[in-house]
Amino acid sequence: MIGKQIYNFLKELFPICRSIMGEGNRETLRLIQKHIPIKIHEVPTGYQAYDWEVPQEWNIRGAHILDPEGKKIIDFKNNNLHVVGYSMPVNKEISLSELQKHLYSIPDKPDAIPYITSYYEPHWGFCMTDKQRCGLKEGKYKVYIDSSLEDGSLSYGELIIPGEIKEEVLITTYICHPSMANNECSGPAVATFLAKWLLEKKRKYTYRVVFAPETIGAIVYISKNYNDLINNVIAGFNMTCVGDNNNYSLLPSRNGDTLTDKVARHMMNNFVDSYKEYSFLTKGSDERQYCHPKVDLPLVSLMRTKYGTYPEYHTSLDNLDFISEEGLAGAFKINKLCLEALEHNDIYENCITCEFKISKRGLVPKNWRSRHVDSNYDLKKYIRDMMNVLFYCDGKNDLIDIADKVNLSFKECYNHVKLLCNNGVIKNSRK
Amino acid sequence: MIGKQIYNFLKELFPICRSIMGEGNRETLRLIQKHIPIKIHEVPTGYQAYDWEVPQEWNIRGAHILDPEGKKIIDFKNNNLHVVGYSMPVNKEISLSELQKHLYSIPDKPDAIPYITSYYEPHWGFCMTDKQRCGLKEGKYKVYIDSSLEDGSLSYGELIIPGEIKEEVLITTYICHPSMANNECSGPAVATFLAKWLLEKKRKYTYRVVFAPETIGAIVYISKNYNDLINNVIAGFNMTCVGDNNNYSLLPSRNGDTLTDKVARHMMNNFVDSYKEYSFLTKGSDERQYCHPKVDLPLVSLMRTKYGTYPEYHTSLDNLDFISEEGLAGAFKINKLCLEALEHNDIYENCITCEFKISKRGLVPKNWRSRHVDSNYDLKKYIRDMMNVLFYCDGKNDLIDIADKVNLSFKECYNHVKLLCNNGVIKNSRK
Amino acid sequence: MIGKQIYNFLKELFPICRSIMGEGNRETLRLIQKHIPIKIHEVPTGYQAYDWEVPQEWNIRGAHILDPEGKKIIDFKNNNLHVVGYSMPVNKEISLSELQKHLYSIPDKPDAIPYITSYYEPHWGFCMTDKQRCGLKEGKYKVYIDSSLEDGSLSYGELIIPGEIKEEVLITTYICHPSMANNECSGPAVATFLAKWLLEKKRKYTYRVVFAPETIGAIVYISKNYNDLINNVIAGFNMTCVGDNNNYSLLPSRNGDTLTDKVARHMMNNFVDSYKEYSFLTKGSDERQYCHPKVDLPLVSLMRTKYGTYPEYHTSLDNLDFISEEGLAGAFKINKLCLEALEHNDIYENCITCEFKISKRGLVPKNWRSRHVDSNYDLKKYIRDMMNVLFYCDGKNDLIDIADKVNLSFKECYNHVKLLCNNGVIKNSRK
Repeated sequence: MIGKQIYNFLKELFPICRSIMGEGNRETLRLIQKHIPIKIHEVPTGYQAYDWEVPQEWNIRGAHILDPEGKKIIDFKNNNLHVVGYSMPVNKEISLSELQKHLYSIPDKPDAIPYITSYYEPHWGFCMTDKQRCGLKEGKYKVYIDSSLEDGSLSYGELIIPGEIKEEVLITTYICHPSMANNECSGPAVATFLAKWLLEKKRKYTYRVVFAPETIGAIVYISKNYNDLINNVIAGFNMTCVGDNNNYSLLPSRNGDTLTDKVARHMMNNFVDSYKEYSFLTKGSDERQYCHPKVDLPLVSLMRTKYGTYPEYHTSLDNLDFISEEGLAGAFKINKLCLEALEHNDIYENCITCEFKISKRGLVPKNWRSRHVDSNYDLKKYIRDMMNVLFYCDGKNDLIDIADKVNLSFKECYNHVKLLCNNGVIKNSRK
Repeated sequence: MIGKQIYNFLKELFPICRSIMGEGNRETLRLIQKHIPIKIHEVPTGYQAYDWEVPQEWNIRGAHILDPEGKKIIDFKNNNLHVVGYSMPVNKEISLSELQKHLYSIPDKPDAIPYITSYYEPHWGFCMTDKQRCGLKEGKYKVYIDSSLEDGSLSYGELIIPGEIKEEVLITTYICHPSMANNECSGPAVATFLAKWLLEKKRKYTYRVVFAPETIGAIVYISKNYNDLINNVIAGFNMTCVGDNNNYSLLPSRNGDTLTDKVARHMMNNFVDSYKEYSFLTKGSDERQYCHPKVDLPLVSLMRTKYGTYPEYHTSLDNLDFISEEGLAGAFKINKLCLEALEHNDIYENCITCEFKISKRGLVPKNWRSRHVDSNYDLKKYIRDMMNVLFYCDGKNDLIDIADKVNLSFKECYNHVKLLCNNGVIKNSRK
Repeated sequence: MIGKQIYNFLKELFPICRSIMGEGNRETLRLIQKHIPIKIHEVPTGYQAYDWEVPQEWNIRGAHILDPEGKKIIDFKNNNLHVVGYSMPVNKEISLSELQKHLYSIPDKPDAIPYITSYYEPHWGFCMTDKQRCGLKEGKYKVYIDSSLEDGSLSYGELIIPGEIKEEVLITTYICHPSMANNECSGPAVATFLAKWLLEKKRKYTYRVVFAPETIGAIVYISKNYNDLINNVIAGFNMTCVGDNNNYSLLPSRNGDTLTDKVARHMMNNFVDSYKEYSFLTKGSDERQYCHPKVDLPLVSLMRTKYGTYPEYHTSLDNLDFISEEGLAGAFKINKLCLEALEHNDIYENCITCEFKISKRGLVPKNWRSRHVDSNYDLKKYIRDMMNVLFYCDGKNDLIDIADKVNLSFKECYNHVKLLCNNGVIKNSRK
């Protein structure tokens, strides 16, 4: 159900031609706005963010190649990957050999159109399948790109969902990839539905959800929100490659030892058949900014199949068939489980010295302990688990620590804790 | 020899009908008193200890079942496990189907009488072998239990053996189990002889030896001695299941990292062929009180076969044949080794900068180092070990740390340290 | 090339008859002085150093054994191992059975002359191959040792090579072994050439290079330089068994966790096919003094085949054939790599928040990131490595930590850091 909703939304986002700046990005943000009340920010060309400067805005209306016989062999309308991102306008007739200098294809993947950009170096180019490229004949080709590069602004969306406390959980994703599904329509789509779910629930933490172009967008965002991020963010999740149904993957934070790493590993270990934890050295998404040592947020990526590790990556084969409702739903669920756990991840301590008298508090059938012979296995396990949870409520372990120690899922652990709290056996150490 | 002494004492304890309170417990404590000068404490019905209240005292004079032909098929005299502990008095004729509601047996163990109690819920019942139960015919049965439940007191024994310093080692065991041998006549029997041995030796630490009913007794004891326990106990040993000769087992403390855990592991690793270390999550004895996070004493159980892991557990098959002199002697020894090590587990430091001149101090034959060819292997190993011990006497490692680091037993390590101390090469850092 | 130079120098040192004190040691130090300006110190007989006293000086002019037929079967001139070190003078005729009490050989190694000394117990003796010893016939033997034991002095060489800062790196080796090649002409020979190299380079650290007899020499040296060593030495290397070409071995420091251990392991892991790390418990060289808990310098031995682990050890078979130019060069290199790394092992931190814009700083071809399809693998790996280094420049990790974290050699890591520093992307945290 949630998978279908996300998939349908992703289908709307898919055809739009996005880049780091331009109308496609604004259209994308407006579609997101139909679901959640993000605020759209515009940052003008020339804005300085640390080592970077917001470049000119790129917009494209159409592009094609005519072969020597005048036949349109490439049309931007068919696939926006056909044009190198940030291509300068061009309109001329050139020889095949001249054209080859502006063509991109992948010999190993003859049916894939590659995804190529040239944000900061003036350039124009076309991408096509290697199969098509190999069939090109000698002659004069007409190349036409109706694009513009002009002062404009970088657009990003931001939603602050207030909670009881000012400490924040950051959810970030990027909106700069054109028509590819896993990397990266899945990130904004799943992030939108996570935000939607958060808006409807009681929240302890404040949530900050950011939709920005990768790299330059993240850097601009950090530059405008540095102090808030540094002071408030207690956990962060980067949404990328959350659409396919093949694997689960974790990219930990820089040192791999934050609260977010802990909750991510717990959920992966408890709710997924298997997953792969990558080294931070294989980073490649916006953790390059959010986990930079001078920012150093506790941010991880809980992905399906990681960027760069599947053959369809950064090509036209990363399409709507590569992802699935199940894939999106699985990613949504694992990230949601982490958020839920963080909301309840408190530290508890015992109120009563020695074991409490379980029978008198109505938590179990009377006299359960004495008459083992009568006890059924489930009840015995239930009571043993409850008592094990109790023993690690010592004012030091948080609930994720306890769940890991007593071999329960966070939720089972939390259910015991709620019951014990309600019965006055333990209390929240922070209150 | 020590095994035989303990076994003979255990045989005296075995037939007595014990429960959490009652005359059987007092008789048990008086038998212990014949060996060691414990003080017997009485805590009246109604006493509040944290979440618990001392219940009424249970005493039983006899019990039986007559079958439809008037034949006595169950008699309490034959085995005190036949009556559910804390059974209310009863004297009536009932149908077999009514009787079945009050019978306990174990289908999987047709020859075993189970051990069942009902301390805090009014109830009566009989336990028998499943074989006998299956042979019961329809008809009227006469059930008779001549018991009483009246205000009285909970009895426990306590022996404080003073040492040079007020820091304490706690030895605790329980006296509430009726006629079962490993769990639990072995605990009180071994604890008695450990105390006897302690009384006769020079002691640094003060020793606190406690004989109380499980759970309620431990909780009452903690409630009456909380500050002393918390402030003084530096190590603790729970005596349970120390009678059979099948395995060695260790139940560590709550976090498994205390001084007691360290000495216990060292001794298990050095003096036992193999042993099993259980997770604290499998706790089931009085560490549930002494290791509760609000008490948190450094207490472990060094057992033979752990409660709950052998088929005879909590049945009439846990009898005098299940345990042995060898089993008791092995448990006595491993616990005694720990106590001996703790007594000598000091921190030492070097007095002399650089290696001392071993030949001039008469610790070895003259000029041993130079003429390797002459040295025999044992001497070379002896000197190497001595020097290795020396190198970790750095004012930080205690002797157990050093023994583990240099791959010696505590005793070998201590022998080196004594010699080095006597020769002025090292000194006790605490003095 | 360096291997040949060291080998040639070692050949000069090899024939000299050294012991803990005597003319042979002075001759050795004077040969070293031809390469590096060591200062030769003399410490008189009777000097007290902690538990030790400098003994009398031993000098020997000649020695032989004549068999019953008057044939010279042993001559000191042929091999200085033939005489037990520190042998008293003797000149008499004795029976074979009397002679046997003063003979040393190794039955397991029938062709080896053992290396035997008797520094602190008056004694005389001869060493020979077991083959020769077994062939001795009954009769009268003439034994002659022209030696002297008189008040004199212990000689050691010391070179302080000043650096920019007073923190020191210690290099120590010993000069008391007579004609054996790996243990121990290789140590002084490699140490000499390391010092020579250090003299010619720019240095941050001050270097202290010590050539002294083993044990008594090290102890005397420590006693005369205790405060300087304790206060200044940040890393230390013991040169022993650095001549053969069979293995690489590491003897770590006492607790195995110092800066020297870290750099040694890094270099072994990165520049050697395989190596063996021994336990400190197998210590046997001057770390017995420098790593003694009251001295506790961060000193390791990076060896080829460790003393005591090869059959030629401490016999005449540890000769010029056992070692090689390659063996010496390998040991020189691994120790030099450690020294080089220490010189540059600083802590760095980022100057720029978020990733710097790599293309604008000329570190890579323009727009490298966008057009993946164009990038060649080497460039991508180079940039990824640089960025990984950048991410661990956090003001906490030193460069060895970073190299280990990002799976680069120290040198590769340092090259990235230099470039990043020069471009203002990172800075040295200590400056």
